[in-house]
Amino acid sequence: LANEVEKTMQNAPQGATTHAISLLLGHPDPTTLLTPEFTEAMQNVASSPQALTALQYGSEQGNRALLDYLIGKISAEQSIALRHDQMMIVAGSTHAVDMIARLYTQPGDTVLVESPTYADALHIFRDHGVELCGVPMDKQGVCVDEMASLLSRLQHDSRLPKLFYTIPTFHNPTGITLIESRRQQIVELARRYGFMIVEDDVYRHLAFEQEVPSSFFALAGNVPVMQIGSFSKTLAPGLRLGWLVAPSEAIARFVGCGTTQMGGGASPLSAQIVAEYCRVGAWDRHVESLRRLYQMRRDTMLDALQRYMPPSVKWTQPNGGFFLWLTLPEPMQASVVKQIALAHGVIVGAGGGYFSNAADGSHNLRLTYSFAPPDQIEKAVEILAGVLNDLS
Amino acid sequence: LANEVEKTMQNAPQGATTHAISLLLGHPDPTTLLTPEFTEAMQNVASSPQALTALQYGSEQGNRALLDYLIGKISAEQSIALRHDQMMIVAGSTHAVDMIARLYTQPGDTVLVESPTYADALHIFRDHGVELCGVPMDKQGVCVDEMASLLSRLQHDSRLPKLFYTIPTFHNPTGITLIESRRQQIVELARRYGFMIVEDDVYRHLAFEQEVPSSFFALAGNVPVMQIGSFSKTLAPGLRLGWLVAPSEAIARFVGCGTTQMGGGASPLSAQIVAEYCRVGAWDRHVESLRRLYQMRRDTMLDALQRYMPPSVKWTQPNGGFFLWLTLPEPMQASVVKQIALAHGVIVGAGGGYFSNAADGSHNLRLTYSFAPPDQIEKAVEILAGVLNDLS
Repeated sequence: LANEVEKTMQNAPQGATTHAISLLLGHPDPTTLLTPEFTEAMQNVASSPQALTALQYGSEQGNRALLDYLIGKISAEQSIALRHDQMMIVAGSTHAVDMIARLYTQPGDTVLVESPTYADALHIFRDHGVELCGVPMDKQGVCVDEMASLLSRLQHDSRLPKLFYTIPTFHNPTGITLIESRRQQIVELARRYGFMIVEDDVYRHLAFEQEVPSSFFALAGNVPVMQIGSFSKTLAPGLRLGWLVAPSEAIARFVGCGTTQMGGGASPLSAQIVAEYCRVGAWDRHVESLRRLYQMRRDTMLDALQRYMPPSVKWTQPNGGFFLWLTLPEPMQASVVKQIALAHGVIVGAGGGYFSNAADGSHNLRLTYSFAPPDQIEKAVEILAGVLNDLS
Repeated sequence: LANEVEKTMQNAPQGATTHAISLLLGHPDPTTLLTPEFTEAMQNVASSPQALTALQYGSEQGNRALLDYLIGKISAEQSIALRHDQMMIVAGSTHAVDMIARLYTQPGDTVLVESPTYADALHIFRDHGVELCGVPMDKQGVCVDEMASLLSRLQHDSRLPKLFYTIPTFHNPTGITLIESRRQQIVELARRYGFMIVEDDVYRHLAFEQEVPSSFFALAGNVPVMQIGSFSKTLAPGLRLGWLVAPSEAIARFVGCGTTQMGGGASPLSAQIVAEYCRVGAWDRHVESLRRLYQMRRDTMLDALQRYMPPSVKWTQPNGGFFLWLTLPEPMQASVVKQIALAHGVIVGAGGGYFSNAADGSHNLRLTYSFAPPDQIEKAVEILAGVLNDLS
């Protein structure tokens, strides 16, 4: 969404954005990115013969030590028995989404998405020429009844979807988590209508209060699910490193595709550093500290919203992840609010960009609590509330 | 091509491949990958505040210091005046080829390629559903007369190509360099028939003896050329790092596309390490030593071919890069030679995989001289010659 930031900046009154507080970007807190343990892992790799392997073309499936570590960890966390042929290392969730779109869709195919969903994923699917079809959400995630009706209509029009792209856990942009009973119902719809589920689960490790529901991958039985994980939200985006869990036939197809054959496995140098970092238990400790950090940020934002917002404004109550979602009263246009907030030094995401049909987001804002420090979050919410009070 | 290696291994007689010499993979010499200067650059980044930037989402166009360095170097080397908006950092040539195919072709479009060409690039184009159309080569590169006739036929069939993918300098798999006068003629064909030139120039820096011809980018004037460069052949493939030079409109499109917006700039951590490595002049010195190293390897292979091969076998005389190309007498099938050579402990690439029409390569082998040490190269050529003598 950096293009959006840039456009926003260009349209801003001069001087307004110099000290603007960003509640826009879905970035991790920049102060968490470089820990002593990470520096040590990097230095260990730099000065050891491991670097020789990490600097050559990598094994297509990805760094073996990292795969072994992740298979053990994810199998335990999700109560599944992952086999080695069901996972590969990817260069971030971007790589996975793009590869899935490239190899499992054709231009003109239908892809179901949540409404709203991750703006940049919409962008990737559009680059591949697919038709996006949004399914409404409520506080418990995707509305399954509406999904069933939509699928029935699509079947009637011979436009059944190839896949359903979902962020079921600590959803981007709303922070909502899809309840487990609905996950089971969606698996049944996938079985009935023959579509794959792409489970973008990059926030799963950032749970604040409770157990997260079972993953689609764990619930799906023989319904094909591709589950995407990433080190971008829980370690460092600059590594370009994540993983993809999928049926072995799909992994074989990804490993055998042109880009993997040409470039080898994803990000071999980063993967070796992270394998070393994970080996000593550093990632587990880091994720634990991030959970506490982002929970405090979320509390700061919720407290400020409670204190300052006019009663006509509603928001979600995320139990993990980076975001919450504001719903403005009908007359207020998110795009107008965004511009006025910017003039007052606060950058927020207008809802339209997160919908396959932009008009559906006219009255929504996404607020990120992961990036700005607590005092800035509180100040930004107070300013935004002032703007909304003035408009009320 | 690792899949090909694996298949080859599976079909081999037991024990034959345990100590097999690989003349197959287009990898750099593994002993050159980890220099003291590279270790130092990595350690400098690990222990400095630079790492903080390198670990966040990177600027979409890529690491600024590395871009500045490459713009200066490439402008000087190719006698062009590159602007900042004409280049971006990519995650290796793979990323560039895939992004070009994704954004500049539709399934069913025609793409011209050299015949033969880089097997994995064919694979990427096929993954995007394009129709590949090969142009024959001789010792001076692509045959322009045949290209002109082909274009005329394609125009008649309303199948004019979107782009011409070429490896003009130290070509993969043949080692041939396209002469400059033909480059100019091809630019005129591109102007006349309205196709883009994709110049995969990853071997340009590995010139052994003489000046290389002007690049397509330098010759093209207002004809759109996308030129791909890479650190994979001259530093380390595991970095997943290269660059793309293109018209500013194309760079803006790549920077603004879904994958770049979602993942940020390519390989931020690798890019910061390499920017540090290049800043102190280490890459220039390394490339100079690689030129001498690979020239000696090429000489070793040419000497051995001269000494051992039956007179009916012909080969190219590369002036740079990693490969040379054998042409077998008509009755000998490359696929048969490959299997017998493997049984004798030598792995070579059969020609078919390098052609859009595999049958065109029935009598060719690709030999790599970059990967195996000199004594192994000589031994492998002697063994291969023995196989061919037995078959003669």
